[in-house]
Amino acid sequence: MYRFKPELRIPGPVPVPSEVSLQMARPVINHRGAVFKEKFPDVLSRLKLLFGTENTVYMVTGSGTAGMETAVSNLVSPGTPVLCLVGGFFGKRWAELCTAYKAVVHVLEFPWDRGVDPDQVAEFLAQHPEIELIFAVHNESSTGVLNDIEAISRARGDHQALLVVDAVSALGGTPCEMDARGLDVVVSASQKCLMMPPGAAFIALSERAQTYMEQSEASRYYFDLRRYQQFLEKGETPFTPNIHIVFALEEALRMMEAEGLENVYARHLLMRDMARAGARALGLELLVSDADASPTLTAVKFPQADEFRQRVRERYGVEFAGGQGVHAGRVFRIGHMGYATPLDVLTALAVLEIELKKFGRATEAAERVMAAQ
Amino acid sequence: MYRFKPELRIPGPVPVPSEVSLQMARPVINHRGAVFKEKFPDVLSRLKLLFGTENTVYMVTGSGTAGMETAVSNLVSPGTPVLCLVGGFFGKRWAELCTAYKAVVHVLEFPWDRGVDPDQVAEFLAQHPEIELIFAVHNESSTGVLNDIEAISRARGDHQALLVVDAVSALGGTPCEMDARGLDVVVSASQKCLMMPPGAAFIALSERAQTYMEQSEASRYYFDLRRYQQFLEKGETPFTPNIHIVFALEEALRMMEAEGLENVYARHLLMRDMARAGARALGLELLVSDADASPTLTAVKFPQADEFRQRVRERYGVEFAGGQGVHAGRVFRIGHMGYATPLDVLTALAVLEIELKKFGRATEAAERVMAAQ
Repeated sequence: MYRFKPELRIPGPVPVPSEVSLQMARPVINHRGAVFKEKFPDVLSRLKLLFGTENTVYMVTGSGTAGMETAVSNLVSPGTPVLCLVGGFFGKRWAELCTAYKAVVHVLEFPWDRGVDPDQVAEFLAQHPEIELIFAVHNESSTGVLNDIEAISRARGDHQALLVVDAVSALGGTPCEMDARGLDVVVSASQKCLMMPPGAAFIALSERAQTYMEQSEASRYYFDLRRYQQFLEKGETPFTPNIHIVFALEEALRMMEAEGLENVYARHLLMRDMARAGARALGLELLVSDADASPTLTAVKFPQADEFRQRVRERYGVEFAGGQGVHAGRVFRIGHMGYATPLDVLTALAVLEIELKKFGRATEAAERVMAAQ
Repeated sequence: MYRFKPELRIPGPVPVPSEVSLQMARPVINHRGAVFKEKFPDVLSRLKLLFGTENTVYMVTGSGTAGMETAVSNLVSPGTPVLCLVGGFFGKRWAELCTAYKAVVHVLEFPWDRGVDPDQVAEFLAQHPEIELIFAVHNESSTGVLNDIEAISRARGDHQALLVVDAVSALGGTPCEMDARGLDVVVSASQKCLMMPPGAAFIALSERAQTYMEQSEASRYYFDLRRYQQFLEKGETPFTPNIHIVFALEEALRMMEAEGLENVYARHLLMRDMARAGARALGLELLVSDADASPTLTAVKFPQADEFRQRVRERYGVEFAGGQGVHAGRVFRIGHMGYATPLDVLTALAVLEIELKKFGRATEAAERVMAAQ
C-alpha cells in the first residue's frame, strides 16, 4: 500500500540509471564547438559494437518512429514496391509509413502472437521479384515476439530486396549482428535497452543501402541522411542535436561495456525466463510461445487487464503496459529491458502474486472468463 | 587566463538554469500514463501566452528545423506556389525545405544585414495572386536582424496567402503576438529564449492554417499534425516524446512567469542596447542598424573573426558564434537570449575590451583592414 517508489516496468521508455540521468543535467555546450565535435563521432562509433556493424551509425533527434521514417524517407520513392512483415503494432507502423511515402505496399500478415514465418517470406519473394525493400521488426514490443531476423534475412536467398529492421526495442538487449546477418538498415532509439530517456534515434545502413538511398525521390530534409553523412565528417549534425543524449549515451555505453555485452544479453535472457516461469507458476497465460519469446518484454493474457494494471500501479507503484491493437484491454506487458535486473523481475512477480491472491475472488472469476475463452 | 567556467554566449543552444537542468535528470515516466497525460496539455497550453494565441500549441520531438519541416510538410503539396522571404541562413532554410517538398518556390532576397522590406512583399504579392503561403523569419539569428513581422503580415492586405513564421530564436525573447498580428503558423524550439536544452520544437496554427493543412498531399507521418491533434485530445503525443523537455518547460515557464513576460522582453531589449553601445564604444562595427537590431543576439563585423573567437574561448571560456553564409569568418555573434542577464553582457564586453587592448597591434591592423573595406 505504498507507492512512493515508482517501478516503471513497461517496454519503454525504461528507467534510467542515475549515472545516465545526471548526464542529462549537464551544462549545455556548443554543438558546433570543439568539445562536441570530438565527443560525438567517438560516442556514436562505439554503438557499432551493439549494431554489430562496421558501417556508420547516425543519430537523429526524435523518437523511434523518427528513426523509422528516416529509413523510409531515404529509401522509398513513390511507386517503390515494398514488402512489410506485420505481426504487431510496429510492423503495422512500417506499412503505414510506406503508405504515407506512396510505396506500392505489400503486406504479409502474421498472427499477433507469433513470429514472422521465413518460409512465407521466401515464397512471397519468389513470386515478387520486383520487391526492392523488406520492412521487418526485430522485437515486436506490442506482443513480446522476438522475430528470427537472421532467418528472415536468409529467406531472401539471392533476391535483390534490402532488409530494413526496426530494432528499437531489441538493440542492446539481444544481439543484432547487422553485418553477419546481412541486415541492410537497422533503426533503434534511446529509450529502450540503451537505458536513456527518449529523445534520439540511431540508424545504420549497409553499403548497398547507402548506394540505394541515393536514388530516392521522396521529399525529405530533416531526415535526409546525406546531410547527416556530410556533417558527421566534421563531427557534427546538420541540425541542433539532442546534445544531452550524446552525454547520456557515453555513460550508458560505459556501463554496458563494463558489464560486458555478452553479460547484458544473458541478463535479458534470464529476465525473460524468470518472467515466463513466474507468470506460469501464478497460473497466468503467456501470449507468446517459448520459441518466439522476447528477451526484453513479456506479454501476459489477462481479462480486465487495464483494471488490474491500474490497481497494481496505484497500490504498489509498479507500472505495467497495456495491450496494443487487437490485444487492447486483454493483455498486459511486463518490460524487462535496459536498466533492469532479475531482482526487478522478482519484484514484479511478487506484486503479481500478492495482488492475484488478495483479489482471489476476482481472479477466480477472471480465470473462468479465460477458461471460457 | 582561466577557463574553468564556460560562458556560452552563442545564439543557441543557450545556457540553461540549474532549476531547468535538474528537471532533465528526473526519473522517466510513462508517456501514456496518468501523470504525463495530466501535465502535458497543461504545460503546453501555458506556452500560448508566449505565442500570443488562443490556438493549440503542439510539441514535436526534434530540433527547430524539425519544427520548420512540420510546418512545410503539413502545408506544402507538390506544386504549391509559395513565397520565401530570405535575408539570412534561416530564411534560406525555408526555401530549401519548400524546394524539398516540391513547391513552386518564389524567393524575395534581402541583403543579409537588414530586415525584410514589407513594401517589396506587398508589391510581389500584388503581381502574384496565386501565392498560397509566405515563409518568413521573425528573428534571423544568422545576422541578428529582427524582422518587422507585423508589417510583413499587414503587407498581405487582402491577399489570400498564409504567413508562416520561424520564431525559433525570437519566441520568449520578444513579443510574438500571433493572433493580434495575424500570423498563421509560428514555429519555435526549446534551446533558445525558452532556456531549455535542445530536443523539442513547438508549433501553433491559426484556424485558417488548420483548415488549409487538411488539403496537403505531402508525404508525412512523424510530422503529421493531424496525429498530434488527435493524441493531444487525450493528453498524449502520437510518438514517444522528449518527456524531460516537458518537465523542463514547466520549470522554465514558471521562471518566466515569475519574472513577468514584460520584464523578460525588457531585459532582452536592455541586453541588446548594452551589447550594441558597448561594441560601438570599443570601436567595433555592428552588422545591423539600430532599426533592425535583434533583442536576442548581436552580430559584430570583425576580420579574422574565427581566430579572435578561438582566442577568447581558450583564454576566458567565453564562447561567441561565428558568421554564417556570406558572413563566415568575417562576423562574430554574441548571443544574449534566454537565461542571460545584463551582467552577462557586461562580462562579454569586458572580455572583448581586454582582448582587444591586449592585442592592440593586431586590433589596429584589423581596424585598418576594416577601414579599407
